[in-house]
Amino acid sequence: MSGGLDSTTCLAWALRDGWECYTLSLDYGQRHQAEIAAAARVAQALGAAQHMTVKIDLRQFGGSALTDNIEVPKGRDAGEMGHGIPVTYVPARNTVFLSLALAWAEVLEAAAIFIGVNAIDYSGYPDCRPEYIEAFERMANLATRAGVEGHTALKIHTPLIRLSKAGIIRLGRELGVDYSLTHSCYDPGPDGRPCGACDSCLLRAKGFAEAGEHDPLAQP
Amino acid sequence: MSGGLDSTTCLAWALRDGWECYTLSLDYGQRHQAEIAAAARVAQALGAAQHMTVKIDLRQFGGSALTDNIEVPKGRDAGEMGHGIPVTYVPARNTVFLSLALAWAEVLEAAAIFIGVNAIDYSGYPDCRPEYIEAFERMANLATRAGVEGHTALKIHTPLIRLSKAGIIRLGRELGVDYSLTHSCYDPGPDGRPCGACDSCLLRAKGFAEAGEHDPLAQP
Repeated sequence: MSGGLDSTTCLAWALRDGWECYTLSLDYGQRHQAEIAAAARVAQALGAAQHMTVKIDLRQFGGSALTDNIEVPKGRDAGEMGHGIPVTYVPARNTVFLSLALAWAEVLEAAAIFIGVNAIDYSGYPDCRPEYIEAFERMANLATRAGVEGHTALKIHTPLIRLSKAGIIRLGRELGVDYSLTHSCYDPGPDGRPCGACDSCLLRAKGFAEAGEHDPLAQP
Repeated sequence: MSGGLDSTTCLAWALRDGWECYTLSLDYGQRHQAEIAAAARVAQALGAAQHMTVKIDLRQFGGSALTDNIEVPKGRDAGEMGHGIPVTYVPARNTVFLSLALAWAEVLEAAAIFIGVNAIDYSGYPDCRPEYIEAFERMANLATRAGVEGHTALKIHTPLIRLSKAGIIRLGRELGVDYSLTHSCYDPGPDGRPCGACDSCLLRAKGFAEAGEHDPLAQP
């Protein structure tokens, strides 16, 4: 859970589908802590059975504008975002996240992991593609007790993977999600307000516009 | 790097093969810190370019005698060790370790990750098997920039995977490894001395005996 549009909508989807949900956030040294607070707030508001934040300092490895002193790009258009892997890419982030989810899933004897990755408005992250998720699932089932003792295989569910950002917002509205609880900005101000100009803010604004919805976080 | 026989021998192998090695240890809330100190000592003594310890508290998830308050089993024979997955299994441990290694490898633009897993004297851990490593490698190449931008694929090397513990010790001796630097025990005393009775101590003693070598850490 990042507490953004995607993970929030994904949680709402899993709960509506009848799952008991244990939500996991990573405090990985991102520049801002608003994301950590939003994730916990959303998990509680939507009715997760338990929310856990695991701290791991990915800054030690360097390599991303989200954890390093690299400047977050502002005001890029969709064409620029679509080219190559952006500086906001955190090395192997979803692999680290899914691995930790897998560790907890194994202890909980969970049947599934849900992750709100999205291959359409994905900003160029390699670890949001369906072929990556399938490879992770295969590896996960070889990594764990399930793979050895013939338990039910673990499934990785990605209900948002083929939706546009507008489609995600429409789905979330149908599920009754209150998007005022969420947080998307890569570079919020000291008061926690979104910058309105980073890739994440721009994709969010574009998504709400295309969905014909008002973003409760938008400046009036 | 755990600073045990396997990771130490694996590092010696990679260095002898001409690789510039960046070594990674995880401080994952194991009951004892002797392992963390041994890993750093070994990395420096053997000539790693850089050693890094990443802290992540896997105790939050529970589920293992190595991180929980479950008692470490003592005095089991090889037959008992070979049956099922032991309580010392840490959920998804190698997946968490390899994922973090992958994050660093991506930043370093490394061509390979070496891991000293071993499928023979493996004590029943599912994430030490060749099919698991192959699945991880496949996933890793889809997870990262390499998979998108057509860089050289990342290889996961497991030079010890088909060696017995005795074979690993013989290989290490050929490579000039000083095993007095290493640490294997799951449950060392307050002075850091090995207990001599946990699975790891027993496998180590058996390995040295079968290799016809003296363990420099053995009680006189």
